[in-house]
Amino acid sequence: MYDRFLRHPFMSPTGVAACDAQAFVSAMCAFEIALARTEETAGALPAGTAERIAQHIPAEAFDLSALAETAADGGNVAIPFVKQAKALLPESLRAYFHKGATSQDVIDSALMLLIKPRLARCLEHIGATIAGGRALMSCHRKTPMIGRTLTQQALPITFGAKVGQWLTGLAAAERRLRRVHDEDLFVQFGGPVGTHHGLDDALDVMDSLADALDLNRPWLPWHTDRQPILAIIDAVGSVAVAAEKIATDVAFMAQTEVGEAREPAATGAGGSSSMPHKANPVGSARIRAAARQIHAAVGTIHSAGAQAHERAFGEWHAEWAPLVDAVLLLEGALETLAPLVGELQIDPEAMRANLALAHGANLAPPTIALLQKSMPTEQAKALAAQAADNARRDRCDYAEALLALPEVAKAFDAERVRTAVDPSAYVGTSAAQTTRVEARLGED
Amino acid sequence: MYDRFLRHPFMSPTGVAACDAQAFVSAMCAFEIALARTEETAGALPAGTAERIAQHIPAEAFDLSALAETAADGGNVAIPFVKQAKALLPESLRAYFHKGATSQDVIDSALMLLIKPRLARCLEHIGATIAGGRALMSCHRKTPMIGRTLTQQALPITFGAKVGQWLTGLAAAERRLRRVHDEDLFVQFGGPVGTHHGLDDALDVMDSLADALDLNRPWLPWHTDRQPILAIIDAVGSVAVAAEKIATDVAFMAQTEVGEAREPAATGAGGSSSMPHKANPVGSARIRAAARQIHAAVGTIHSAGAQAHERAFGEWHAEWAPLVDAVLLLEGALETLAPLVGELQIDPEAMRANLALAHGANLAPPTIALLQKSMPTEQAKALAAQAADNARRDRCDYAEALLALPEVAKAFDAERVRTAVDPSAYVGTSAAQTTRVEARLGED
Amino acid sequence: MYDRFLRHPFMSPTGVAACDAQAFVSAMCAFEIALARTEETAGALPAGTAERIAQHIPAEAFDLSALAETAADGGNVAIPFVKQAKALLPESLRAYFHKGATSQDVIDSALMLLIKPRLARCLEHIGATIAGGRALMSCHRKTPMIGRTLTQQALPITFGAKVGQWLTGLAAAERRLRRVHDEDLFVQFGGPVGTHHGLDDALDVMDSLADALDLNRPWLPWHTDRQPILAIIDAVGSVAVAAEKIATDVAFMAQTEVGEAREPAATGAGGSSSMPHKANPVGSARIRAAARQIHAAVGTIHSAGAQAHERAFGEWHAEWAPLVDAVLLLEGALETLAPLVGELQIDPEAMRANLALAHGANLAPPTIALLQKSMPTEQAKALAAQAADNARRDRCDYAEALLALPEVAKAFDAERVRTAVDPSAYVGTSAAQTTRVEARLGED
Amino acid sequence: MYDRFLRHPFMSPTGVAACDAQAFVSAMCAFEIALARTEETAGALPAGTAERIAQHIPAEAFDLSALAETAADGGNVAIPFVKQAKALLPESLRAYFHKGATSQDVIDSALMLLIKPRLARCLEHIGATIAGGRALMSCHRKTPMIGRTLTQQALPITFGAKVGQWLTGLAAAERRLRRVHDEDLFVQFGGPVGTHHGLDDALDVMDSLADALDLNRPWLPWHTDRQPILAIIDAVGSVAVAAEKIATDVAFMAQTEVGEAREPAATGAGGSSSMPHKANPVGSARIRAAARQIHAAVGTIHSAGAQAHERAFGEWHAEWAPLVDAVLLLEGALETLAPLVGELQIDPEAMRANLALAHGANLAPPTIALLQKSMPTEQAKALAAQAADNARRDRCDYAEALLALPEVAKAFDAERVRTAVDPSAYVGTSAAQTTRVEARLGED
Repeated sequence: MYDRFLRHPFMSPTGVAACDAQAFVSAMCAFEIALARTEETAGALPAGTAERIAQHIPAEAFDLSALAETAADGGNVAIPFVKQAKALLPESLRAYFHKGATSQDVIDSALMLLIKPRLARCLEHIGATIAGGRALMSCHRKTPMIGRTLTQQALPITFGAKVGQWLTGLAAAERRLRRVHDEDLFVQFGGPVGTHHGLDDALDVMDSLADALDLNRPWLPWHTDRQPILAIIDAVGSVAVAAEKIATDVAFMAQTEVGEAREPAATGAGGSSSMPHKANPVGSARIRAAARQIHAAVGTIHSAGAQAHERAFGEWHAEWAPLVDAVLLLEGALETLAPLVGELQIDPEAMRANLALAHGANLAPPTIALLQKSMPTEQAKALAAQAADNARRDRCDYAEALLALPEVAKAFDAERVRTAVDPSAYVGTSAAQTTRVEARLGED
Repeated sequence: MYDRFLRHPFMSPTGVAACDAQAFVSAMCAFEIALARTEETAGALPAGTAERIAQHIPAEAFDLSALAETAADGGNVAIPFVKQAKALLPESLRAYFHKGATSQDVIDSALMLLIKPRLARCLEHIGATIAGGRALMSCHRKTPMIGRTLTQQALPITFGAKVGQWLTGLAAAERRLRRVHDEDLFVQFGGPVGTHHGLDDALDVMDSLADALDLNRPWLPWHTDRQPILAIIDAVGSVAVAAEKIATDVAFMAQTEVGEAREPAATGAGGSSSMPHKANPVGSARIRAAARQIHAAVGTIHSAGAQAHERAFGEWHAEWAPLVDAVLLLEGALETLAPLVGELQIDPEAMRANLALAHGANLAPPTIALLQKSMPTEQAKALAAQAADNARRDRCDYAEALLALPEVAKAFDAERVRTAVDPSAYVGTSAAQTTRVEARLGED
Repeated sequence: MYDRFLRHPFMSPTGVAACDAQAFVSAMCAFEIALARTEETAGALPAGTAERIAQHIPAEAFDLSALAETAADGGNVAIPFVKQAKALLPESLRAYFHKGATSQDVIDSALMLLIKPRLARCLEHIGATIAGGRALMSCHRKTPMIGRTLTQQALPITFGAKVGQWLTGLAAAERRLRRVHDEDLFVQFGGPVGTHHGLDDALDVMDSLADALDLNRPWLPWHTDRQPILAIIDAVGSVAVAAEKIATDVAFMAQTEVGEAREPAATGAGGSSSMPHKANPVGSARIRAAARQIHAAVGTIHSAGAQAHERAFGEWHAEWAPLVDAVLLLEGALETLAPLVGELQIDPEAMRANLALAHGANLAPPTIALLQKSMPTEQAKALAAQAADNARRDRCDYAEALLALPEVAKAFDAERVRTAVDPSAYVGTSAAQTTRVEARLGED
Repeated sequence: MYDRFLRHPFMSPTGVAACDAQAFVSAMCAFEIALARTEETAGALPAGTAERIAQHIPAEAFDLSALAETAADGGNVAIPFVKQAKALLPESLRAYFHKGATSQDVIDSALMLLIKPRLARCLEHIGATIAGGRALMSCHRKTPMIGRTLTQQALPITFGAKVGQWLTGLAAAERRLRRVHDEDLFVQFGGPVGTHHGLDDALDVMDSLADALDLNRPWLPWHTDRQPILAIIDAVGSVAVAAEKIATDVAFMAQTEVGEAREPAATGAGGSSSMPHKANPVGSARIRAAARQIHAAVGTIHSAGAQAHERAFGEWHAEWAPLVDAVLLLEGALETLAPLVGELQIDPEAMRANLALAHGANLAPPTIALLQKSMPTEQAKALAAQAADNARRDRCDYAEALLALPEVAKAFDAERVRTAVDPSAYVGTSAAQTTRVEARLGED
């Protein structure tokens, strides 16, 4: 399918491989077998039934093409799946298979089984990204660069502080994703209208089934209460934004005219054959492309969230592909993000050169603070401004422009002036921010 | 992939089959070969080059898996495609291949080639739907049913008038889609930064290339002017809404308690094995599910529409899958819609029964119009209201309740009363609307 | 403005009144005064400064029209606000005002101050809704109704179970909103590039400022880390979906042909002047309209979430109105939801009548369970089906149709048959579900 | 309201003023009066009625606050509007007022009346933008600058070609908006269920009413056929994207490190008080903020597009504010865009300086084309690459680096080398593109 070329490049190959059609059938089988086991334990099926069912329905026995071709008829693949499964079973077991369950039980639970390891992998990638980012932050705790607002150079910060921002956002999103992974991946089991017809103690069965599948126990079946799905997609979306923010900053820093960062080879960045001087930030572009598609999934799932009656007529169906797409796109984005952050190539020289572009216009406060030690504030302000103008005109260093002013030169030692207007000393709480982030990440 | 079970059931199987990975490679080959031909004609390549290139790169010669695996590296599949193609060519032809082109030229043009026949097929399905709907409308031009607003029974209409609404919306959306199909599917050809470096008369080449591929001629290359993509997705989205409106009405009419319509067997509707009394409106549900996913694609493509500089860093990439998804989802929805409308099973008896539920409360105006011919208006109003109350209380027919009132019985002939309060006579412009729609569809 | 007619009807009047332009100025003043106090405490301002500033800038002293007219120039209203404030201050205080702050500090913090009481009010409304819903659920714990899937009647449930679904979803969403209200409404304070230039110990000042404003302490300023905003909008969106689900179910139940529920007078429902027989579910419609607009805000804020550098160029600005809109739309929706649920008019008779529409087709399992006590299963199945067919044909009660079959009549006591096929006894775990929801709500 | 500070800065003040609550009432009055006139002409009302109605309901006579406060009850403002209007009329006229109309007729038509002049104004702004852009394009037809892809410098183009791209996109979007303005703003008139109960020849009345209001004639009333609204919002959205593309390019060019463009004073750009060296691209930021909010409106209106039965329950209501918001945001964006483009400050020197940053790495093709005139191709390639390396290492001009190579210096005249590698000569079809755009704009 076109997906291989048009969607999968933004997904994790590992994730894609783990979510093929066969895997989905395996997840449906896992649900049915666990259901039979649980019902057997509850006394609703004869002893040994589950094991016998399991033996007859290895996931490989299903005809995937037939499943795909007939899924549309009833509106979901669980219907032909159950039919195929029953055909695989001896007559005597058929009545025990899928007992008390409905299509939505199978599909919702299978989706949870499918995405759980993917979210776990996402959390690993986030962990790796934070580890790499933490090292990057510490290393550049004091590396000065210009802070930019509305695309314009503003005041100096350190690159460490910028990384601290990245990690703060990523850590916040990680907490949301971890909560979802740990607490919000619920088993689905309710039968045709969600009230377990024909099965005693079915809420207990539902809870045990959750345990058996290593999923969470819901209060009730959630056929048309889609809060669980909302929680997942929202958390996926928030991690996507955190990744997209980093990718966007990297891409901006990688602009030829800025040149402060360069993507590592690991993200696939590399030369264009026709333009060997280019180093496209391909990893950032992929992350940004993935994030935008994830945003759409958030929108779809919110607007399909209110599902009528006991089972929806279309809204539920609209969740499936966007949900799995979003998870695999996130895994793909994070698979790129980890090396992007961990192996990001930083050019502190370029940062210094860019800082110098303002020719001191961004250093008025520390300049004035120094000068007014030996002159009135108004004069200090005027001299600071004049030096900046001169530096810009002469394209020279701001400190030297200051020292070229007789009023400054005679009042202050040259080294003292140079130190006072060193941008790396005028970075506010940049270093304190990195310290705080380190500490908080430790507590997290 | 999970797509087979989770996305494809809402797509057209024909469309899905026509858009597999091999088809995308064929489209890329078609672009390259047409480019070579066009350049050859323009004198930019030696005579015979294009034919020789074509012979060396049959679409089947490409290693699809290798393409898929390496697409992520450079961020798009055209990069490894060009590499594989050059490897297939003799050394002497390599410099003539992909001459003056860039990845985006290949991919955007291939996408247009891929979706053009799909949009044509969509237009055919719309045509069939309108043909079927027109027959349905004419047949039910005078079939009375209750009009409903905010879920409540309001005043009588005819089912023909409702179908007239469906067709009006569908015809409006069709005009948009047809315009896009005929005028807005542009070739893409601009080279690395969209200004055709190294190729003389390249705008003419671009135009000829469009002709050769049976695509439209753009003013300029549109690498970061995404108006063409917006026009496509907007039209696709508007058709989706028109289909979703019909599906929603059908699903509402198919409710057990309403029972006025039933989906035909052709949409896959059918019994539930566990609940044989059910006839799920599965076709409607599939259309609604498709439409919701198409809405998301509209959103993605609009919000990725502003692409920076001469080539975007992520926004372009985010368009591909949503665009093709949306087109195939639309084709799928329309493939269901045509029989849904054309073979829809209507129950005029149920419509009449539902009309009677109001026990005349919705017939006050014609009742009063009759009664005031022989009594003061206020009395006419009072009697009309009383008859409605009585009819509701006694669960009897409104005309009979009116005739049970002595003031009415003695003033009017029974048949005249029955005729005056026949809901089928109180349907406003319903019939005129169907006449108008028929006429306009004829002009269209 | 058109808002009064086109947007405010879906909002809470209380909320709208609390968020007028004056209130926004008050919130900005509150931020500035608290900042001065905090800085004074930290020794960064002379003692008494904050109090003197506070005296000079009562919120009423600002020229709102001038603020509105000049907000566009610099791109946000904080710029003219600071200018007006400084003009109100004596020269000697001006340097101490807004010290170390930037526009975004003022606006983000003011937004948090504005929405915090609104979210609190939302939580109150949810509390009231759950209280009302709990009573409704308990009252209808055993009230049988038909469960519906894909618009079709399926199997019996109780109305209590349906309410249990509503409350489960609402409670899940409430937990998310409460967490956001309690933990995620952060003060914003970072200065021009987020690193507190010119202010020592500024991270401590930031923390103290959070405490002073009763907002939460962020790790760092979050000028371009929008995870806090995402958390808010996601939670708002999830509550909106929970409300929309309930409203959708109510509207479906209120359909004339279904007639199981009717909105209470408190939601504004009422007669149409031209059609007095109608009782439009206006409250549900308003909630649904609000929810759809909230979904859009979720989308906007996610897709604007990745903000570049140290301050964004447009994405931040795009958050403001959608965020406040969404909060006020939610408050409006919940203000309607509480009475909608608490005073919902239920018609158990209509529920019973609708249950009877299936003429026993949905009661095969308990019928067969009974019959096979005295005959082979196959025969039991055949008789159950035949009775259903007969009941449908003769439009009679299923139990009577069963008893009309000699094989049944002679084998079973009439009362036993009637009891066995009473739909109210065939509702699965409906009652257990209400019990569970009651217990869980108690723990919550 | 908070709108004044949080939403209106991105809107047109003219547009906002033209759409206040009073204006909406005026539009509703205009609808009712035109309806009465049309009905009078059709003989459905006594002669002179319309004029008498008009005299009694001047728009100023309505109590706006009362309208706003009661709009929620029935779900829309037309209900209290009709009630107030009837109270203003003498008893004898009341039956003739709003005859055959329903709330939705009033509101949909009033919305069309409200937005029509706004779209006309948008078209004027686009016209002005295109005029200004055309001058800019012509002026910079040959001004060389670097083309950028994926944030990286790629190959030279001219600034004129970039403007040509902007205008091509804007002109395409303009065609869509003009079509909507001219053909797709329909009157709404259908009565309670859209079939004109109680009015003969009502389709003709509808057509005449359209003419009277200078709106378009629909085929049928479109209460739940929302294709007209989709067409509007899609066109608005496409213009927004065209504006956003330009704003994004301007913002990127205005980056401090790039410095190729600077917003004119007219867009509100200007100094930051704390950072006087900054020139924030505020106009671009406002346009981007507006566009993102418009994208959301597109999404809302598409996903609310399928409206059930004869009148929707919530979806219609969800359209109002987003539609008007989007139109006014667009007008605001275009009001900024016209001077942004028309008075954009371009720095060709900065463009040249940025071009030189590649030190010839982007000039290999013309270099090789020259050199191979006197040496083998392989040697030409090697020398071109070596000169680029040397130029980068020595931070010198590429032409000089070439001339420093003895093989080059001895084979070619210095001037010939300098001419051959002048980036302004290596811009592909840049100039031809501007010529084409000029011609096409002329035809348009």
